[in-house]
Amino acid sequence: MSERKNILFIMCDQLRHDYLSCTGHQRLHTPNIDGIAARGVRFANTYVQSPVCGPSRMSFYTGRYVSSHGATGNFVPLRIGEKNIGDHLKPLGMRPVLVGKTHMVADQDGMKRLGIDPSSEIGVHHTQAGFEPYERDDGVHPDLKVHPDVAYNKYLRDRGYDDHKNPWHWAANSVDRDGEVRSGFFNDVANKPSRVTDEESETPYMTRLAMEFLGEDDGETPWLLHLSYIKPHWPYIAPAPYNDMYGPEDVQRALRSNAELEDPHPLAALYQQRVCAQTFSKDEARNTTIPAYMGLIKQIDDQLGILFDFMEQQDLLKDTMIVFTSDHGDYFGDHWMGDKDFFHNPSVKVPLIIADPDPSCDVTRGTVEDRPIEAIDLMPTFIEYAGGKVPRHIIDGRSLMPMLQGKDISWREYVISEYDYFMQPFSPKTGRTPLDCRIYMIANAEWKYIHAPGYPPMLFDLIDDPDEFQDLGRSADHEEVRKTMHYALADWSLQYRQRDTVSEERAYEMVGLEDKLGVLIGYWNEDDIKPPAQAPRFKGN
Amino acid sequence: MSERKNILFIMCDQLRHDYLSCTGHQRLHTPNIDGIAARGVRFANTYVQSPVCGPSRMSFYTGRYVSSHGATGNFVPLRIGEKNIGDHLKPLGMRPVLVGKTHMVADQDGMKRLGIDPSSEIGVHHTQAGFEPYERDDGVHPDLKVHPDVAYNKYLRDRGYDDHKNPWHWAANSVDRDGEVRSGFFNDVANKPSRVTDEESETPYMTRLAMEFLGEDDGETPWLLHLSYIKPHWPYIAPAPYNDMYGPEDVQRALRSNAELEDPHPLAALYQQRVCAQTFSKDEARNTTIPAYMGLIKQIDDQLGILFDFMEQQDLLKDTMIVFTSDHGDYFGDHWMGDKDFFHNPSVKVPLIIADPDPSCDVTRGTVEDRPIEAIDLMPTFIEYAGGKVPRHIIDGRSLMPMLQGKDISWREYVISEYDYFMQPFSPKTGRTPLDCRIYMIANAEWKYIHAPGYPPMLFDLIDDPDEFQDLGRSADHEEVRKTMHYALADWSLQYRQRDTVSEERAYEMVGLEDKLGVLIGYWNEDDIKPPAQAPRFKGN
Repeated sequence: MSERKNILFIMCDQLRHDYLSCTGHQRLHTPNIDGIAARGVRFANTYVQSPVCGPSRMSFYTGRYVSSHGATGNFVPLRIGEKNIGDHLKPLGMRPVLVGKTHMVADQDGMKRLGIDPSSEIGVHHTQAGFEPYERDDGVHPDLKVHPDVAYNKYLRDRGYDDHKNPWHWAANSVDRDGEVRSGFFNDVANKPSRVTDEESETPYMTRLAMEFLGEDDGETPWLLHLSYIKPHWPYIAPAPYNDMYGPEDVQRALRSNAELEDPHPLAALYQQRVCAQTFSKDEARNTTIPAYMGLIKQIDDQLGILFDFMEQQDLLKDTMIVFTSDHGDYFGDHWMGDKDFFHNPSVKVPLIIADPDPSCDVTRGTVEDRPIEAIDLMPTFIEYAGGKVPRHIIDGRSLMPMLQGKDISWREYVISEYDYFMQPFSPKTGRTPLDCRIYMIANAEWKYIHAPGYPPMLFDLIDDPDEFQDLGRSADHEEVRKTMHYALADWSLQYRQRDTVSEERAYEMVGLEDKLGVLIGYWNEDDIKPPAQAPRFKGN
Repeated sequence: MSERKNILFIMCDQLRHDYLSCTGHQRLHTPNIDGIAARGVRFANTYVQSPVCGPSRMSFYTGRYVSSHGATGNFVPLRIGEKNIGDHLKPLGMRPVLVGKTHMVADQDGMKRLGIDPSSEIGVHHTQAGFEPYERDDGVHPDLKVHPDVAYNKYLRDRGYDDHKNPWHWAANSVDRDGEVRSGFFNDVANKPSRVTDEESETPYMTRLAMEFLGEDDGETPWLLHLSYIKPHWPYIAPAPYNDMYGPEDVQRALRSNAELEDPHPLAALYQQRVCAQTFSKDEARNTTIPAYMGLIKQIDDQLGILFDFMEQQDLLKDTMIVFTSDHGDYFGDHWMGDKDFFHNPSVKVPLIIADPDPSCDVTRGTVEDRPIEAIDLMPTFIEYAGGKVPRHIIDGRSLMPMLQGKDISWREYVISEYDYFMQPFSPKTGRTPLDCRIYMIANAEWKYIHAPGYPPMLFDLIDDPDEFQDLGRSADHEEVRKTMHYALADWSLQYRQRDTVSEERAYEMVGLEDKLGVLIGYWNEDDIKPPAQAPRFKGN
């Protein structure tokens, strides 16, 4: 049992990289999350593969870029053939278990075409992205598509919230105002307490489920527990006392410059016109909603404190790697934008902290790693931690284990993020077909370059302009930089990332395979034969 | 029945673009193939997606680029999820039937992972690339891996060629010399007749099978018959009288220049060192083997004459589109290279002729189309011909039907070809790992640019140097051209070609989907609601 190595893979949803005390927030204190950093490594430059839930998560769960796995948007199914976290970890003897959200959309057409019953073991495996669903809850349940079996809704109904078929919306994510129930989707009530109590709200509910799973642990089979909180994602409604734990005085300055409104990049202009951008360009909205968002983060930190205490009691901390991250951030009016979906740091950067209790990682405890990390690096990290070999012909990411162990390794220079904006309400205004609504980001320590087919590029100087206020995409002085970044983007793109049926080991065996089989192409006679080929010989007649 | 529309999809293997009389060969007369051109359109600039059998064919059968479908080499399985010709044509009511070669390698691991029995209907569908195998014969059966059930071997044994377990090799593709049976893999005997007669050789055997299938035709279900000859592929052994129908005097000049041997591109140098290149750099080999190759082509033409007569008798020509093409060419010493696998025209260009008897195509009969065509254009052509709509989110190619009908359409400027050289015996010399052994070609009417990661590019001026003798890849005068071509290659590469689970129709429906579902991201209050979103409203308490 002491040899067993588990993983607690905590993911928040829509948590910005800079809303933890250990990542620099001045007013928000998150001692329990900071504690993970104190026991492990904080990766200060971590980027998601797409700044939106579904594609980002599919990259986390497959270890592959969005243009590798193809699930480019929320509601876009991950095709049946893609290998998921279960395909990688189960053969290593590790159970990947889910409590919370994955945003996985199953490939129903693919299952049908290949004769796979969605309710069969293989069908469920695909549908759950390879996780064993202890309880799956994707967290956003709009009235128009709420499933009757959402367990959290049953729980709330049992608690007496039975005045609507969808208490997720109308109890946990709504408030009482002027004798009416008001939807938490409206930010004008974000500072009011949710109709449910702290205990009844989503984060403690999910934390209790995680502890329930851990309490049932047999102490033998290694597990990866994906505790995947929906919060602090929309609706920005917190239960008391978290709803007014912070106020306008705790809101950090907006990262925006008036220059960004003058002659903006045409695509940035469309983002600036989104409802969420219009809302959060106003200080009133920021001052109302950001405190609630901070409260939701504080609640997560408090719950993690409870969870870690429980794990300590269960003696689980000593053999469990703890990973804390998020699937993307939120603009909150920075750059005159709202929500996420674009490539400025508030949207595309996430916190990432990993604490591995193994003594091999003692040398890095409490350190900060500045090299560029991608979300796809977690899957290979898990594989290596679980004792496997990373299949480089499938996994695009790289294991972080050597960094955790303080080893001297070469590392990538660039990070990539991609976004497919066809689902954006503004996409028809671009006149582009859905397959053409693509944007790409490539960034290194100095530059961030955004390639938007059909538009000029964007470019930010991350050294002289770390807040990304000045778009140099059309600047006459930066043509060489843009060319260098574009070539780097092309290098990244020009890879056979779909050659996933031949492992590296097999590929090496296949060198010169035709000769080995006696298919002697272009030989004049026996003199051309060099080992290992053998002369075809048959003495007939 | 008169409404039924069939397709006869004839493919040769290793047939160069310029070895037909209608494509300019001065000594080889191919009246039956020329006849297809007279009744249809000859596409004079047709490129394969990879200059090697397997990947090229997977592109023909999926309508997707090699880096889309991932089967980048012979022996590289096509992954289970890729949609094949059957997935596209069967729902349209068309039977895709195979006589001959596909080079399809099934994804055994993928089938196992997804619980698909390889012998089940779905397993066979995948394994046969979606074809109904009337008789599959991949044509190259080396002794070390010949399958005991090769039907052609049974046929030969029944004909008395029973002195070896593999008469494909030792009867059909060998010769008698000095009382010994000598393998046809040795080109020093290429001008000798095969041990089998014309009638017993592979091309007439396959043609008879095609006629057998056509004779069984029920006259109701539309079919696509893929008559896929292994010839004129290696071994270059023809039966009498085709073995000496042509002689050294009929061999066209080699397309090579001494300049190509001076300071060659490092990768080109490795190709020039291959056995096949060394062999065919010698005139003796060219003068011995090319006449046999011409004989094999002449034999195909004669057999097609027989087939077309039969179809005329069966009254099938009037409702059958005839397509004639090849999977790649052969260098035969051009550019000091042999076999294929690289991007000069003798290797990467193929003949393509399409004759559609429909009156809508009368306007183009006998014409030559010069616009750049890719192998992936056939699959969408078949879909449109069969009455379907081309799923642009899956199919990379474009239907040629508008060209056949003489419609005025815009068309691509560039063609792409890719090659994965990890299996080449020289690949270890490059010091590159298998996943890094990649080369890409992009060509338009003026330029051919070859991008080889880790090496300088190659560049040919197709206007001033149509024979591709002078590599301008390192010329100081052509930096702008190279940049333009590289950007075009990047544009091609930077596409979401794996977003194949959402059709264009569905994508348009998904625009603004979150709002439609009532997930009102970033709304301040009801004033932000514009159709089609509805205000979330619930009057509780």
